[in-house]
Amino acid sequence: MFGAGDVRVVDVPDAKITAPTDAVVRVVRACICGSDLHPFHSMPVGAEGRPMGHEAIGVVEEIGADVSRIAKGEFVIVPFALEDNTCVFCVDGVHTSCVHGSFLAGGQAEAVRVSQADGSLVRVPGVGEDADEAVLASLLTLSDVYLTGWHAALTGRVEAGKIVTVIGDGAVGLSAVLSARQMGAQKIILMGRHEVRTNLGRQWGATDVVAERGKEGVAKVMALTGGEGSHVVLEAVGHMPAYEQAYGIVRPGGVISRVGVPQYELAPVGFGSLFGKNVTLTGGVAPVRGYIEAALPDVLEGRIDPGKVFDVTVGLDGVPAGYAAMDARDALKVMVNPSL
Amino acid sequence: MFGAGDVRVVDVPDAKITAPTDAVVRVVRACICGSDLHPFHSMPVGAEGRPMGHEAIGVVEEIGADVSRIAKGEFVIVPFALEDNTCVFCVDGVHTSCVHGSFLAGGQAEAVRVSQADGSLVRVPGVGEDADEAVLASLLTLSDVYLTGWHAALTGRVEAGKIVTVIGDGAVGLSAVLSARQMGAQKIILMGRHEVRTNLGRQWGATDVVAERGKEGVAKVMALTGGEGSHVVLEAVGHMPAYEQAYGIVRPGGVISRVGVPQYELAPVGFGSLFGKNVTLTGGVAPVRGYIEAALPDVLEGRIDPGKVFDVTVGLDGVPAGYAAMDARDALKVMVNPSL
Repeated sequence: MFGAGDVRVVDVPDAKITAPTDAVVRVVRACICGSDLHPFHSMPVGAEGRPMGHEAIGVVEEIGADVSRIAKGEFVIVPFALEDNTCVFCVDGVHTSCVHGSFLAGGQAEAVRVSQADGSLVRVPGVGEDADEAVLASLLTLSDVYLTGWHAALTGRVEAGKIVTVIGDGAVGLSAVLSARQMGAQKIILMGRHEVRTNLGRQWGATDVVAERGKEGVAKVMALTGGEGSHVVLEAVGHMPAYEQAYGIVRPGGVISRVGVPQYELAPVGFGSLFGKNVTLTGGVAPVRGYIEAALPDVLEGRIDPGKVFDVTVGLDGVPAGYAAMDARDALKVMVNPSL
Repeated sequence: MFGAGDVRVVDVPDAKITAPTDAVVRVVRACICGSDLHPFHSMPVGAEGRPMGHEAIGVVEEIGADVSRIAKGEFVIVPFALEDNTCVFCVDGVHTSCVHGSFLAGGQAEAVRVSQADGSLVRVPGVGEDADEAVLASLLTLSDVYLTGWHAALTGRVEAGKIVTVIGDGAVGLSAVLSARQMGAQKIILMGRHEVRTNLGRQWGATDVVAERGKEGVAKVMALTGGEGSHVVLEAVGHMPAYEQAYGIVRPGGVISRVGVPQYELAPVGFGSLFGKNVTLTGGVAPVRGYIEAALPDVLEGRIDPGKVFDVTVGLDGVPAGYAAMDARDALKVMVNPSL
């Protein structure tokens, strides 16, 4: 990406090992993230391009001298946040704060360098790049999107009997719906206005859809909850109006969990928004590495199908058009298959 | 209170029953709250005075026609927030959001009207106004201050092995120290600069005291936690610098619990403060009603002595001087004994 709206496919030097803890992964599938749209809207034009793509599955092509848990030829999931998986914060489950952490960059490519390969990469036993397309799609969501939705629901303390409202019908929001259903939510209200998306949300467990936004949206959710509000609000957008909706609909003593990357730093948190009704604000950058192993059986045994968020697949040459399609909401989430 | 800095003792009509769910309580002890200092600093001068005081213990003098669980002559604790104790939010433990809720007003007086008496008042069996002064003092803290500190520690999820930092050495902060110790915190760092207060904090379980504020304070706490930060931060001040300290010292994946009434509405919550390190922001107006019964045995059987926060006692005529003394930090917390 060279600036807002300016994505190009260019030849760069091959990905290679630069530290003994690195691996190089040949990308089998990558994708475009909703969070990639933030720089797509706002990135200043610069001389240097930024390598894009932080979600991938693929085959290990090379490993550094200190890599011992992962071998060449293995089929792996690459989480968007890379980590040693042994430091004090990783052990606490906050892998995104790993003391050796970084973010994957350049996954929308033929191959990508992965730092901290032993800690970051998760081998998928019994599966290869020739797997069923639906399986590959769902495995790819474990690198970020589905497990980011899971993180929202988990930190939001969704449990049986709770009323959960999800703000945002993008791929993360829909993944949050799926996760909330898995955790036993009694009622799941999805706030979104794109029918194709909200239909997938209904399929995944949304019991109600609210297309209105702002004050009208708040009023609708309050009506749907008998005037009491939602026990849990999962905010999967990241813009201030979504945050304002969140504290408008959350029930006293309830939880707002954010996984949409906030495009603001300051927000209301005082007596009139959070403090007065004892609302908990939680969430953050999802430490998906900690969730991948537990989610694998659900995907491989077909109990969940988070890969349904992908509705368009492109080759590398199609990536710029993929950004434009997601930006125009013509695509929900774009998969990249470098072999096309 | 007639405006900032202007507290007067005036004769007003006697407290009386105005709704069948009311009671009138003769005040045995009341007190001045740290939160009373906020209007003491900022209240606009107005024609109408505001009756002050939201913490009291006393004897029931009169009850309305619909009051059945509390009888005349009983010795009771009056929580600062009044509630029916039966609505959906009370049942959830968020009594401060009771659908019939209000705040006690005019407790710094000879008698006070208590609405929702059946739900609000807690009888203290076997104790009367002739009880030991230390017992009365500790019972009085159950109307607000000690249980507000408890609320901070509880919503902050303090538990065995955790590092807890308490910001503020006022009566609520010290109560938070005591509560954190009861919940098994491994290390309790108290941020405060008034030695008389921090000494009480040490007595109640603080393992370290940090007198520095701002960047220096943050650096000191980081050093005391091996550079990792505090699992839990209990913010008992309510001003922005305390909030900024809180997110500066909280550990990735940690919790900030606020019980100091925020004197701000907007605060940093984005990638650089909370979101990036998965910090949870919780707390709020303490629903102390839900905690009183459980705390009573600890007080009556002498396992805790939260009444030690009171270092000055005045009669009603001494209340204006009491405000000034708390404001000047000559007093930690002022008790009011209307019989003096």
